[in-house]
Amino acid sequence: MASSTPAYRGDADLARLLQEAGIGRSVEDIRDLIAGVNAAPDGSRPDRWLELVGVELPAELEAQLRALRDMVARPVLPQQGDHADRLGRLRAELQRRGLHGFVVPRADEHQGEYVPLRANRMAWLTGFTGSAGMVVVTLDAAAIFVDGRYTLQVRQQVDAASYDYRSLTDEFHGDWAAANLRAGQKLGFDPWLVTVGWVERMRAALARTGAELVALDSNPVDAVWHDQPPPPLGLIEPHPVEFAGKSSADKRAEVAAELRAHQTRAAMLTQPDSIAWLLNIRGSDVPCTPLPLSFAIVRDTGDVDWFVDGRKLAPDLALHLGNQVSVRAPEELGPALDALGAEKAAVRVDPATAAVSIFDRLHAAGARVEREADPCVMPKAMKNPVELEGARAAHRRDGAAMVRYLAWLDREAPKGGLDEIAAAERLLETRRQVADFRDQSFDTIAGAGPNGAIVHYHAQPETNRKIERDSLFLLDSGGQYLDGTTDITRTIAVGTPSAEMKRHFTLVLKGNIALSVARFPKGTTGSQLDALARQFLWAEGLDYDHGTGHGVGSFLSVHEGPARIAKIPSTVALQPGMILSNEPGYYKTGAYGIRIENLIVVQPVEVPGAERPMLGFEIITLCPIDRRLVDASLLTAAEREWLNSYHARVRETLSPLVEGAERDWLVLATEAV
Amino acid sequence: MASSTPAYRGDADLARLLQEAGIGRSVEDIRDLIAGVNAAPDGSRPDRWLELVGVELPAELEAQLRALRDMVARPVLPQQGDHADRLGRLRAELQRRGLHGFVVPRADEHQGEYVPLRANRMAWLTGFTGSAGMVVVTLDAAAIFVDGRYTLQVRQQVDAASYDYRSLTDEFHGDWAAANLRAGQKLGFDPWLVTVGWVERMRAALARTGAELVALDSNPVDAVWHDQPPPPLGLIEPHPVEFAGKSSADKRAEVAAELRAHQTRAAMLTQPDSIAWLLNIRGSDVPCTPLPLSFAIVRDTGDVDWFVDGRKLAPDLALHLGNQVSVRAPEELGPALDALGAEKAAVRVDPATAAVSIFDRLHAAGARVEREADPCVMPKAMKNPVELEGARAAHRRDGAAMVRYLAWLDREAPKGGLDEIAAAERLLETRRQVADFRDQSFDTIAGAGPNGAIVHYHAQPETNRKIERDSLFLLDSGGQYLDGTTDITRTIAVGTPSAEMKRHFTLVLKGNIALSVARFPKGTTGSQLDALARQFLWAEGLDYDHGTGHGVGSFLSVHEGPARIAKIPSTVALQPGMILSNEPGYYKTGAYGIRIENLIVVQPVEVPGAERPMLGFEIITLCPIDRRLVDASLLTAAEREWLNSYHARVRETLSPLVEGAERDWLVLATEAV
Repeated sequence: MASSTPAYRGDADLARLLQEAGIGRSVEDIRDLIAGVNAAPDGSRPDRWLELVGVELPAELEAQLRALRDMVARPVLPQQGDHADRLGRLRAELQRRGLHGFVVPRADEHQGEYVPLRANRMAWLTGFTGSAGMVVVTLDAAAIFVDGRYTLQVRQQVDAASYDYRSLTDEFHGDWAAANLRAGQKLGFDPWLVTVGWVERMRAALARTGAELVALDSNPVDAVWHDQPPPPLGLIEPHPVEFAGKSSADKRAEVAAELRAHQTRAAMLTQPDSIAWLLNIRGSDVPCTPLPLSFAIVRDTGDVDWFVDGRKLAPDLALHLGNQVSVRAPEELGPALDALGAEKAAVRVDPATAAVSIFDRLHAAGARVEREADPCVMPKAMKNPVELEGARAAHRRDGAAMVRYLAWLDREAPKGGLDEIAAAERLLETRRQVADFRDQSFDTIAGAGPNGAIVHYHAQPETNRKIERDSLFLLDSGGQYLDGTTDITRTIAVGTPSAEMKRHFTLVLKGNIALSVARFPKGTTGSQLDALARQFLWAEGLDYDHGTGHGVGSFLSVHEGPARIAKIPSTVALQPGMILSNEPGYYKTGAYGIRIENLIVVQPVEVPGAERPMLGFEIITLCPIDRRLVDASLLTAAEREWLNSYHARVRETLSPLVEGAERDWLVLATEAV
Repeated sequence: MASSTPAYRGDADLARLLQEAGIGRSVEDIRDLIAGVNAAPDGSRPDRWLELVGVELPAELEAQLRALRDMVARPVLPQQGDHADRLGRLRAELQRRGLHGFVVPRADEHQGEYVPLRANRMAWLTGFTGSAGMVVVTLDAAAIFVDGRYTLQVRQQVDAASYDYRSLTDEFHGDWAAANLRAGQKLGFDPWLVTVGWVERMRAALARTGAELVALDSNPVDAVWHDQPPPPLGLIEPHPVEFAGKSSADKRAEVAAELRAHQTRAAMLTQPDSIAWLLNIRGSDVPCTPLPLSFAIVRDTGDVDWFVDGRKLAPDLALHLGNQVSVRAPEELGPALDALGAEKAAVRVDPATAAVSIFDRLHAAGARVEREADPCVMPKAMKNPVELEGARAAHRRDGAAMVRYLAWLDREAPKGGLDEIAAAERLLETRRQVADFRDQSFDTIAGAGPNGAIVHYHAQPETNRKIERDSLFLLDSGGQYLDGTTDITRTIAVGTPSAEMKRHFTLVLKGNIALSVARFPKGTTGSQLDALARQFLWAEGLDYDHGTGHGVGSFLSVHEGPARIAKIPSTVALQPGMILSNEPGYYKTGAYGIRIENLIVVQPVEVPGAERPMLGFEIITLCPIDRRLVDASLLTAAEREWLNSYHARVRETLSPLVEGAERDWLVLATEAV
């Protein structure tokens, strides 16, 4: 790419080109824009940012804009640097402010799974790059709290001389803070990064010691992170109604009706995917999920105030938004909350995900805050018929890509020499050929042999394993397509699997089938069904330490609330149209990992003689399950029939989409057992 | 009985007899005592109250005491009377106090399942005798909220001219209150009868209207209920360590250690069964459950202040209690809470069950209130080896009684003529012959034909049905024995069951078996297992509207927390030693009801090759399951084997305990299918 870009000819020249093109922006503006663009992921179309300058730009201007961007330094990854020095600088800043400690969560202002570079303060401070965690720093101690996924990784990335390694799940980090502070000492926190529940729990923990919890106006990490990247400026585009299935105006009218029914004046939206759903837009501020970071307030009239950096908006977006949506600068959010307070309005805020600073500001301004779920969460989760058709189509194309890939893998892997990173790259390459592919929906998990037993493994050059003969290869991956999000796990036998591998695989398969065929009355939650997927493993004293299923968005988050299928108690009933994963597994530490994952849609089912409305699942993932790993003697007749009929459907649906050797492979891979 | 009692010879004579026996109590005291005794259920030993006067009383004194009691009028049942008049008097009282409404819950100060006569204000006001409900009265409207069990009963008992019938579960009664009050109006409530959660929810509901929720110092119902019975004076006796399995001193030491570990000074105990467990005592203030109504404060030293009417204590109880337990008058509770506040003590109070007045008083006094579970709840639920041996022994004797009864039923029922009430009375008679039987553990549910489909049916003279040929008879009953509490349901085929009855029975049985044989890792909750019992019904579009299992006490409450097996999400892990019921069912409205209930004990299980600690269930209920209702073609080989092996165990264990025709019946009833 670099070779095709001409040299940058200087600011004066660019200023002239901008002026000639009728673009009223200074070179300084353009440099700021590029800094923001560089703080967002490139995704599959790295040049789309040019639209943020203007449409149909003269070729010479485009070339100079590209040249300028090539000259601007990309942000340093937060985790790279001298962490002991950073910790020292943070402590000095705390002392300067009269604080005795500070809390650094992984979360950003939206409590999302992916955070932009700017918000990864935990990585900057400690070097830890995991997707969940909590750091507590006092003037003379520090601890990093991570969950079971990251116990190894935290030891590799974080210096034991600076931080205690602690469990995020077995203990509450507030108890550690209380034990490391004395009466009267002050523990600071950034009220934009935590929820009300956290503050209540933390305050109770500190009360035992008599230490004080103090909300700060500005984040001390930001004060000492001198090259902190700016907020990302990822292009925001319309999500056409042919994929969304319902206009934003209709969605807003429905949300407004819901608010009016509860005599609620407005709802605060802090989850970017809710806003993306409501406004039928998609963005590119974080990896793997097409969402624009922003806040919004939706009123009981259907009017929306959208707090977003206007520079991110594609040129045609204003027209798409219509006149009920006002784009406002992010810094106007605070005054807008004050205005709601001045109205004495009843404002709905979701306590599970909204930052405590929003509650505090609304309270202080005199609003009546209602702690209720974000009104977009449920309609977003219940996909409409157009979204479901899109999901089915995306899964057909994704399934065909998986078949092409698995046919290749079956040829290549037994030769030896293939490693996890190469295998994952080939898979991404294969998906890139698929129509309407935009991005992977998460970083592929490609675990060979013992690495397959590390549940959230991501191959790194230093962990990269060869795929050996007579081993299992676990592959969990997914794509973001314009019409839907996919997420699939297959476990592949390379060479000859052992009898034990087959037994464990078959137990996992039996659980996957039990959940697939489950029928259940309306009102049933995912936590009620979870045990169906585990019962066969449990009978043998085995289990897996992750949920059985998570919600999946429609060209949105691959992990989407509010429904889950998990041990953790849930009060969210499964509703028709929800897309969930079904992914039981088994992991033998140091040996291999097994997981079988399909996406499933909650659907009404007609049962002859049924006395109440019943629901069941439609499977939308289409890809062979490795029959070489099935011990058919462990299957009941009904389970065997299920597997054969699933495979017949896979073959029938995907055959027209593949050719030659790949079709031959498909036929073989879907033979009856 | 009355014929053997001589006439009462007058107060002067009784005064002389008391004096001669060296009992320093006036006749007036004795009359008060009798009023309290009459406000408690008689139970199986109605003369035990004499111990409350003294031990080894002269025969003449005993006879005169009995004669006096016979003369004293028994309390009028709260539900009997002119309810329209009562409602009018309550409204006048509200107006007198400047109130615009009042809330009358079914609950007493302990939030228990059984309430004493005095506390059943809902029955007194409305006539409704159900075990759950809520009444809201305003000056010009009133509503009674009941759950699905009571939709018929409320219509029979409560006048539609006075009360709206509403659903306790489909709507929140606070919303009704809000809709029926205006801004500035005052809704009163008795802070001894509701929890903090209720107050928070109610306050939020009223906030929409601007009405005010007002805690009252005294209950307006009590002000107008002129013949309200006094608090019950049921005899309190020691529960010997041979049944309790652990001394009260040891239990108190363990609870104290738990409090110290949390730096908690004291715990408020408001649940009478917790106090009964902690002090190894049993009482008789309410029907079916041997618990004394009282409050207690346990301190981190193991010292207990027990707030209880001293007149209830058996003469030997003081010795049993030892010097770490101080008996204090009920009215001293408030000052004791103030004293904890003056200490600035951290006090644990269970928000699920403690009255809000306790929170308020502690807060006002300056205590630091910790909202945590009652520290007795978990050790009480996890039965010790002696309690488990007791439970097994009680279940063997109870099982033998059931065999005798079912053999009789199989002879008598097909003749026709037997009705529900007679059948239930015969069962109670049969249990009364069993060693160490003290009471039934709840009112027997005996549902013939269509009455079996009413889940919480209790036969009344006006609903009493004959047990007809070719019908099902559902029988749910249990006993309180000194060594354990039983609860068993069997569904009996009278005559020839239809194929549909057998199919439904077998689906229920399959669910019962699936739960019985479940293995699950430590940490699993009952709500995770619930679907195992329902899955076969669900597959056919059927279900049942009650939990699958509840905790059971050890000669205590037949419904005991904290664990359940139910759809409702739970965070309480099943722990070894917990006794639960396993009682799936199916109810065909207007036709028949089916339920199969055994009690089960959570036990560790050894699974060869297990990778984690696993738990399973030991079945302790021993009684044939009606094999005439089993459609063996619907059972898997493993299920059939389970049934035959359960029946073999029942036969083996119970054969030595029954004789002749009953043993013959047992052999037939436990034949292999």
